[in-house]
Amino acid sequence: MSKKNKVIKPELLGGFRDFLPEIMIPRQAVINKITETMEKFGFLPLDTPSLERSSVLGTDEDEFKMEVYRFKDSLGEKGQDVTLRFDLTVPLSRVVAANPEILKPFKRYQYGKVFRKEKPQSGRYREFAQFDADIVGSDSVMADIEIIQLMYQVMKNLEVGEFVIRFNNRKILNGLAKKANFGSGKSENVFRVLDKLEKIGLGEVVKELQRKPDNEYDDTALALSDRSMSKIKEFLSLSSKISELKKFFRGITIAEEGIKECEEIIEALTKLKIPKENWQFDLSIARGLGYYTGPVFETTLSEIPEIGSVFSGGRFDELIMRFTGEKVPATGASVGLDRLIAALEKLGKLPKKKYTAKVIIARIDRKLDDDLLTFADELRQAGIPTEIFLGGPEISLKEQIIYTAKREIPYMVIFGEEEARAGKFKLKNMQKRKEELLTKEELITRLS
Amino acid sequence: MSKKNKVIKPELLGGFRDFLPEIMIPRQAVINKITETMEKFGFLPLDTPSLERSSVLGTDEDEFKMEVYRFKDSLGEKGQDVTLRFDLTVPLSRVVAANPEILKPFKRYQYGKVFRKEKPQSGRYREFAQFDADIVGSDSVMADIEIIQLMYQVMKNLEVGEFVIRFNNRKILNGLAKKANFGSGKSENVFRVLDKLEKIGLGEVVKELQRKPDNEYDDTALALSDRSMSKIKEFLSLSSKISELKKFFRGITIAEEGIKECEEIIEALTKLKIPKENWQFDLSIARGLGYYTGPVFETTLSEIPEIGSVFSGGRFDELIMRFTGEKVPATGASVGLDRLIAALEKLGKLPKKKYTAKVIIARIDRKLDDDLLTFADELRQAGIPTEIFLGGPEISLKEQIIYTAKREIPYMVIFGEEEARAGKFKLKNMQKRKEELLTKEELITRLS
Repeated sequence: MSKKNKVIKPELLGGFRDFLPEIMIPRQAVINKITETMEKFGFLPLDTPSLERSSVLGTDEDEFKMEVYRFKDSLGEKGQDVTLRFDLTVPLSRVVAANPEILKPFKRYQYGKVFRKEKPQSGRYREFAQFDADIVGSDSVMADIEIIQLMYQVMKNLEVGEFVIRFNNRKILNGLAKKANFGSGKSENVFRVLDKLEKIGLGEVVKELQRKPDNEYDDTALALSDRSMSKIKEFLSLSSKISELKKFFRGITIAEEGIKECEEIIEALTKLKIPKENWQFDLSIARGLGYYTGPVFETTLSEIPEIGSVFSGGRFDELIMRFTGEKVPATGASVGLDRLIAALEKLGKLPKKKYTAKVIIARIDRKLDDDLLTFADELRQAGIPTEIFLGGPEISLKEQIIYTAKREIPYMVIFGEEEARAGKFKLKNMQKRKEELLTKEELITRLS
Repeated sequence: MSKKNKVIKPELLGGFRDFLPEIMIPRQAVINKITETMEKFGFLPLDTPSLERSSVLGTDEDEFKMEVYRFKDSLGEKGQDVTLRFDLTVPLSRVVAANPEILKPFKRYQYGKVFRKEKPQSGRYREFAQFDADIVGSDSVMADIEIIQLMYQVMKNLEVGEFVIRFNNRKILNGLAKKANFGSGKSENVFRVLDKLEKIGLGEVVKELQRKPDNEYDDTALALSDRSMSKIKEFLSLSSKISELKKFFRGITIAEEGIKECEEIIEALTKLKIPKENWQFDLSIARGLGYYTGPVFETTLSEIPEIGSVFSGGRFDELIMRFTGEKVPATGASVGLDRLIAALEKLGKLPKKKYTAKVIIARIDRKLDDDLLTFADELRQAGIPTEIFLGGPEISLKEQIIYTAKREIPYMVIFGEEEARAGKFKLKNMQKRKEELLTKEELITRLS
């Protein structure tokens, strides 16, 4: 940092962003509210490193398709193959496997930044925040129900307006793969297409599922047969009616299991009196990730559905097995914090607050500096967040008032020679443009 | 993640760590207390990316000596040269330069992880947390005084026990470079050695300062002359007495400026009634970093000084210039959060708490599941953090009680067939091993 003559462009990396105070203050409020809600359910905080071995995250595998930040941590042969984490679920799995002493069921929440090297586009960032809650070590549907209950409570406490938590079950979809006979090799990709139903409509979904390869190298075409397609269409027409589903899937055990789980969830949510408009059993929900094994969830804001799900998840009973060799059941969901906050901002539902101090003390006379320091300290001790204007005193009082107005700090205290002589303080209410001369005690009472 | 047969070792990268709940809970409490204190001073939150251009961080410069995580973000020519941030001060400088609309003075705080590829050793991690507070745009000593006042208040509010904030001024040290005539080329390195005075003693300091090169390639040897050395010794013997300092530095303007600033700080701290045992003007404080230009600060815990400074900083009037071409004054300090927390833990001053839920509801009868869900919801609505034991009901009540005891959750509610018939709940005080049969209302009152 010594080339003092060369001015360096203060440039961000593409796809990365700063959070300036006016966005950080409401953001922090959202994070605090989510934390509080999750702790009220007894979830415990966890933190894991940003950087992990690529072998642990699975990013060194040929089948790994997501674009990530993977690199060697030193030059030469000895460098480790490392990756910046792309989610918080794989690290959780590692933690659970590496610490067998952790008591299960283990309910943990985690807030953290994750990294994906996607093409930067509007609203998509390469570093973004997730806020996850997971329950490890319970194969009971109770755990899935609690996750939905938590999702409801988080959204409710954030006052996001209208929202719907949609859920489905991977077991039903796996049953569909059997019933429609499209083979387990294709099923992940078929589900991915089905997941787009609401976004692109049935016509496009059918087209995508039946598309034939363009050439011999095209391995993305699913080319489903007409017979498979007609079964899928029949499935989608069931519109999530349990009785019809049961009929459709009779004899296909895996689907029957899934249907039963959905029934239990529906019954619990009904008894819990979670309003009907806030949840929906929806057969088209699949979730893109391959590791789900049971119930899957997602949450859309009804006033801004186009941004997609802001709180999603599902059961992943086989992920931890990667590290343990044996099944450890787990279920959970993740808030897409940046997406949620962007949505709340668009909807005007993000509380706006630009300041942390309630009052700023003008600095107009250097001789009184030490008095201001002491006075500010007294205000803070009384619980009043207080600033001193540190640009003064060569800056005029008028300029200091303009600064305070722009920063939207609610009050200003003026203490100059005159006030010092009178032993009083001038309190300026910035919004009402009203001034009062008060004793110290009066002023503290007024601001408390 | 599809190689399901291969079990992968759930291994952390060397130098990285997990924070399990029992450490995260008190850690979060420390973070919250620091946040609260900084906001009480009116500092505003900021967040910046973990990854930055190497040119912005200066890690692409030949002179950059710190080991960092620097890599190309894609293969081939087009890859960007990027670095994981190693502190929060350079990113702050970039933000200030890139956003000229930010009103100054700008007081910001920032909590974040930073990365340094140091040799992993006990207590040193390659990813660690910093908590910074800085004031940008004020060249007034008032700003430096406020930083010390903030440091004092943070340490006080964290109840760390005895601590000393030591300060000095780089201008005095720059004056020493003139007075002792060791040239500005060497001065940074000389200060670095002086900084070790308390740690290694005067004898070693003298040895290191006078060491001659071993061979022609040895450019680390400072080889100070006896004349320089005797001036330095004289300086150190002044033991921070302002009057003697003034005499020693008479005519050396830069040092006189620094002495005056120290006088102002001493006067303010005295008037502020910050206890004498909590601060000290100390000529041996230099701080390792090259970018300091005025007052420098550090904080040691008196009961565990060997861990070094836990809260340090200084004025850096020339750092932002890297991006703006013109001087933007700034001063601040940074909490070494991991070091501080490790110290508090060693001293037994870290509050211990392993749980977030106050009560757990046993699950002993599947038929009552929906009642438990509703009851848990009612407790939470009443403000009581509540869990349901999600491992049951196939797990015996005895096992559930053992689980609750190990998790240190204070209360347990038992609601089985018997209790359901009586319309009551059994509340078990885990510590007192006392049980009571209560109505719902009584139970809520008891736990509130």
